[in-house]
Amino acid sequence: MPKTIPEDSVGLVEPQTLHFAKPLPLVCGRTLPSYDLIIETYGELNESASNGILICHALSGHHHVAGYHSMDDRKPGWWDSAVGPGKPIDTDRFFVVALNNLGGCHGSTGPNSTNPETGELYGPDFPMVTAKDWVVSQARLADRLGIQCWAAVIGGSLGGMQAMQWAIDFPDRLKHSLVIAAAPKLSAQNIAFNEVARQAISKDPGFHQGRYREQETIPKRGLMLARMVGHITYLSDDSMADKFGRDLRKGKFSYDFDADFEVESYLRYQGETFSETFDANTYLLMTKALDYYDPAADYDDDLVAALSQATCQFLVVSFTTDWRFSPQRSREIVDALIAAGKSVNYAEIEAAQGHDAFLIPIPRYMEIFNAYMDRVSSSVEKSEEVTNAS
Amino acid sequence: MPKTIPEDSVGLVEPQTLHFAKPLPLVCGRTLPSYDLIIETYGELNESASNGILICHALSGHHHVAGYHSMDDRKPGWWDSAVGPGKPIDTDRFFVVALNNLGGCHGSTGPNSTNPETGELYGPDFPMVTAKDWVVSQARLADRLGIQCWAAVIGGSLGGMQAMQWAIDFPDRLKHSLVIAAAPKLSAQNIAFNEVARQAISKDPGFHQGRYREQETIPKRGLMLARMVGHITYLSDDSMADKFGRDLRKGKFSYDFDADFEVESYLRYQGETFSETFDANTYLLMTKALDYYDPAADYDDDLVAALSQATCQFLVVSFTTDWRFSPQRSREIVDALIAAGKSVNYAEIEAAQGHDAFLIPIPRYMEIFNAYMDRVSSSVEKSEEVTNAS
Repeated sequence: MPKTIPEDSVGLVEPQTLHFAKPLPLVCGRTLPSYDLIIETYGELNESASNGILICHALSGHHHVAGYHSMDDRKPGWWDSAVGPGKPIDTDRFFVVALNNLGGCHGSTGPNSTNPETGELYGPDFPMVTAKDWVVSQARLADRLGIQCWAAVIGGSLGGMQAMQWAIDFPDRLKHSLVIAAAPKLSAQNIAFNEVARQAISKDPGFHQGRYREQETIPKRGLMLARMVGHITYLSDDSMADKFGRDLRKGKFSYDFDADFEVESYLRYQGETFSETFDANTYLLMTKALDYYDPAADYDDDLVAALSQATCQFLVVSFTTDWRFSPQRSREIVDALIAAGKSVNYAEIEAAQGHDAFLIPIPRYMEIFNAYMDRVSSSVEKSEEVTNAS
Repeated sequence: MPKTIPEDSVGLVEPQTLHFAKPLPLVCGRTLPSYDLIIETYGELNESASNGILICHALSGHHHVAGYHSMDDRKPGWWDSAVGPGKPIDTDRFFVVALNNLGGCHGSTGPNSTNPETGELYGPDFPMVTAKDWVVSQARLADRLGIQCWAAVIGGSLGGMQAMQWAIDFPDRLKHSLVIAAAPKLSAQNIAFNEVARQAISKDPGFHQGRYREQETIPKRGLMLARMVGHITYLSDDSMADKFGRDLRKGKFSYDFDADFEVESYLRYQGETFSETFDANTYLLMTKALDYYDPAADYDDDLVAALSQATCQFLVVSFTTDWRFSPQRSREIVDALIAAGKSVNYAEIEAAQGHDAFLIPIPRYMEIFNAYMDRVSSSVEKSEEVTNAS
């Protein structure tokens, strides 16, 4: 519990839910008849509506990016380290918008919502959603908020993939795209880990073909396993060595199947906590959106052609020990951007923490992030001048 | 089915089961009252019993290393690429011994054996076995076969760990130790993946606290998941990219939870096949033996002190894309051997195949393996001369 809220926090925040009545045709061929998006906003939109920043979330993320929902919250939003007064995404300068994506389980329309056409829970019938669909839904959200052009769209991991998709699909609606710890598409190994997670969930007897809510149960074991596997891929071998090494829970081996090592009980705890808070159908959907992500596919598998659509400027950031989306994968994006003649800054940050490093305020990362956001801020001021002059 | 058995094969082979009536005290504090070891041997033991080679197996391995059990076998033993006439472990020169380790599920005493003290299946009550215990049981096997000193003890992965343990625990009973694709102990990440496998198996409702045989079922889903995770760690990101990339099974996305990508159906198949042939309690035991492996622990965590016990010569081999036990882990062994003043040859093999590379006849690997085994053969000849002279 934060006895006092830190000065560089956005403070107490409240989510709001927006209803969209216009049907949304999806890449999979189906259509969402209507939907809700739950969002949080921090800071003030300026008169010219040119200081809007969209934050896109990763696999298990949501709209609660910064600040606290109540004075009793143990922890702030998931990217509080980067969002707040004086932080890289400076809420004194920017109007920050974060949402829970369609298919999510934190308040936007998803598998736990009622299908208006049947009056029943969607459950496993919720349509497959892709990063392209999310970007369209986010563009409609921008319309609703009166934002014609984002100063920047920003995201890490799957969030970075959405920032890249924005640049391709809506080139005139963002000035900057910040693609952090991402990849142009998943590798076979990435897909393989996702498939393990999906099998763990869908083969759990508690899954009931996705109709677990009707059975008043959840596929708890499957979700736990999915998260344990996922969690290993978010950390680096080095960071796990630093954090746990071969430390024993009781100082000696049990010679039974209790958790002997600290790392075992840590993973069990992470998995159990997650399994109690995250929806299984959503997890399946999010991993599929990752697998399907491939913006080059619409351009004859030519990433350069895909990124040639973009008119914004780019910051691409990777982390040395990230083995989920290694620096090599970010360099593929950078190379394609350069080949497409785009403006791109690239930073490869020395960091022990693996994929999770994108959430951690590592000094060089924050310096670069700050410096780049100053540039974003300048382009806001310029567009304000243009607006004032016109 | 091999219509004709290749000339460089050991041909048709037959396992034999040896009974050991003398109780075996184990590191865990319990004692096996008696036990069987199933073995295969290839080649002829020479008069001085100096040409014996022991092959130790990895997590899911067994005694069937080379050749065929019947003309109908689709595949030969698991290391047929390295064992046979004219191959590195040349059965024209060496007497090769391979066994299934205690706790195994291929014929040696393990969870599926009857506990002679109760007349019931051991099941989950089978005692925890460690690499140190295996080495003791293998020394007794050597006694039974009349082999005082192995020309070499050889293994990959967990097998290589046993070869290292041999050099420490029975220094005067081997001339050479070949430690391939191994590590001096598991990292936190290694243990974490093992823990995912164990949770998958033990949380499967079909596990019944390890008493699944009495229930006439098996924890099939859990074993399948365990193998899927394991399999990913045996391959490299590169080799998965080469083998599968993002190839689709049906040329387009299903937008449902069918296997869209080739890599998904490959993993499902690997997992299912394994779940039908491997015992769950054995899998749990083998992963624990890996986690517990730490020969330095008996020497104040000083690997140099541990390896100072050794009097044999060493070949250590690693593979560039092995991320389960990376070259760095082999270099830790090599550095400790050098610090201990031992004779060690080290080869880091350029290979795309990840951890599994140790099973693949990669030209440079085979050249080095052959050259080193020539040296082993020379030491056999020398000891024969000594025997003849005496």
